[in-house]
Amino acid sequence: MADTDWPGCGKSLKGVILDMCGVLYDSGEGGGVAITGSIEAVKKLKASDLQLRFCTNETQLNREAFVDKLKRLGFDISVSEVFSPAPAAVAVLKERGFRPHLLVYDGLLPEFDSVDKTNPNCVVIGDAAEKFTYQNLNEAFRVLIGLEKPVLFSLGGGRYYKEGDGLALDVGAYMKALEYACDLKAEVVGKPSPTFFQSVLNDMGLQPHEALMIGDDLVNDVGGAQNCGMKGLQVRTGKYRSSDERHSTVTADGTVDDLAQAVDMILKQRH
Amino acid sequence: MADTDWPGCGKSLKGVILDMCGVLYDSGEGGGVAITGSIEAVKKLKASDLQLRFCTNETQLNREAFVDKLKRLGFDISVSEVFSPAPAAVAVLKERGFRPHLLVYDGLLPEFDSVDKTNPNCVVIGDAAEKFTYQNLNEAFRVLIGLEKPVLFSLGGGRYYKEGDGLALDVGAYMKALEYACDLKAEVVGKPSPTFFQSVLNDMGLQPHEALMIGDDLVNDVGGAQNCGMKGLQVRTGKYRSSDERHSTVTADGTVDDLAQAVDMILKQRH
Repeated sequence: MADTDWPGCGKSLKGVILDMCGVLYDSGEGGGVAITGSIEAVKKLKASDLQLRFCTNETQLNREAFVDKLKRLGFDISVSEVFSPAPAAVAVLKERGFRPHLLVYDGLLPEFDSVDKTNPNCVVIGDAAEKFTYQNLNEAFRVLIGLEKPVLFSLGGGRYYKEGDGLALDVGAYMKALEYACDLKAEVVGKPSPTFFQSVLNDMGLQPHEALMIGDDLVNDVGGAQNCGMKGLQVRTGKYRSSDERHSTVTADGTVDDLAQAVDMILKQRH
Repeated sequence: MADTDWPGCGKSLKGVILDMCGVLYDSGEGGGVAITGSIEAVKKLKASDLQLRFCTNETQLNREAFVDKLKRLGFDISVSEVFSPAPAAVAVLKERGFRPHLLVYDGLLPEFDSVDKTNPNCVVIGDAAEKFTYQNLNEAFRVLIGLEKPVLFSLGGGRYYKEGDGLALDVGAYMKALEYACDLKAEVVGKPSPTFFQSVLNDMGLQPHEALMIGDDLVNDVGGAQNCGMKGLQVRTGKYRSSDERHSTVTADGTVDDLAQAVDMILKQRH
């Protein structure tokens, strides 16, 4: 990408939001591997005058365990900088008096420790992976269909993701199954929900035009941020596909090879 | 229902199509129980000059085993009178050169004995119940996403059904999950597909206006038959709910307490 193609938030830029999987690291056996140059790129951003937050739809681990994984890969990250769907959902549940029936991965359960789960009046699903059994999905369905006003929260709405060598169904597929069975529309907590991006902006105390989102997922990262008034940059790592650059509804404000290149261009522009 | 509310196919009526579960019997432990008066009602129809066919979205048993179950309950039914999605799907697969990857209940597998299943170029899902594991659904998903033109056939598209004391997710929920993950639209084989109803009419050699469908499912039985040009009668047994009588899009041509009442009215009208 030439400098002239640059999204042009230039010197008004005050904060950067980074997607994690596919931007910082590739998932896989033993926690995955850091993407070349990304550890150094995070260091450079931290040394700059820009604010930095991390924004992920990861819902298989609680934030502490997830951040520990990233630290082991060599990243300088702390829990308070990471935004993920589960804590956002907990805030919504408490605010609106919801007691969830949970269908989530075991590793995520600690995030909901502080939430009353007796006599459920809603269902929360995450990327439950092998916990998406016929029995567990039926159980979630029966809770919903037994409610006068069934409410379903989905932690993200992804279709699928890369897992080791193959692809695996993400939470969005199971969200659609329950939506159809119960004739309802789920509330998605996480990317690309504008509420979710807005909570990150609020935490930085920034306006949308002062922030830039960098992600590998054109629709959820780039499109989601753009719907919020931010600029969105796509990296050609992770789940990037060349067809993304001629997508019918979402056009990134810029496309770069990787995070390292993105950060170098951002910092160069500020001097 | 008064005689004046009658759908009025009256003396032009030449054939009747009966849904099975919820009209003839209620499912449950040990094969279920016949609905009061339904065994006698089938006998009366068979003794009349009307043609009779049975039309079900049952996909957990092959037709032989399913008909045996009905016989044990006391019904006079033969395999050639029963139309179910699996044989219809087999015809479509052969006609269009499809080799399916099957995600169906074990009891249904014999229906597909004659179909080439090597190197699959489509996926067929039925009401696989506990075979809808995360692993099996991922496997079906990977077959679809690996095809240049992914094709998904769904044996019926029901949301859920009554199973013993509770409700259970039907094949339609899993169809929606795969549709979303693969960004495609499934082809439904079975009710309410017009092709399926038409195949029953063809077998009887009748025009749509000469046939009447009787079912407990307002949308799939009554609405599906009406979309085909037939009259559709709903019984107040099985999955009938009083809210069906003020449904926003489907209005039955008549609603009766049960099959026994429907048959008595049909036969009375012909004399």
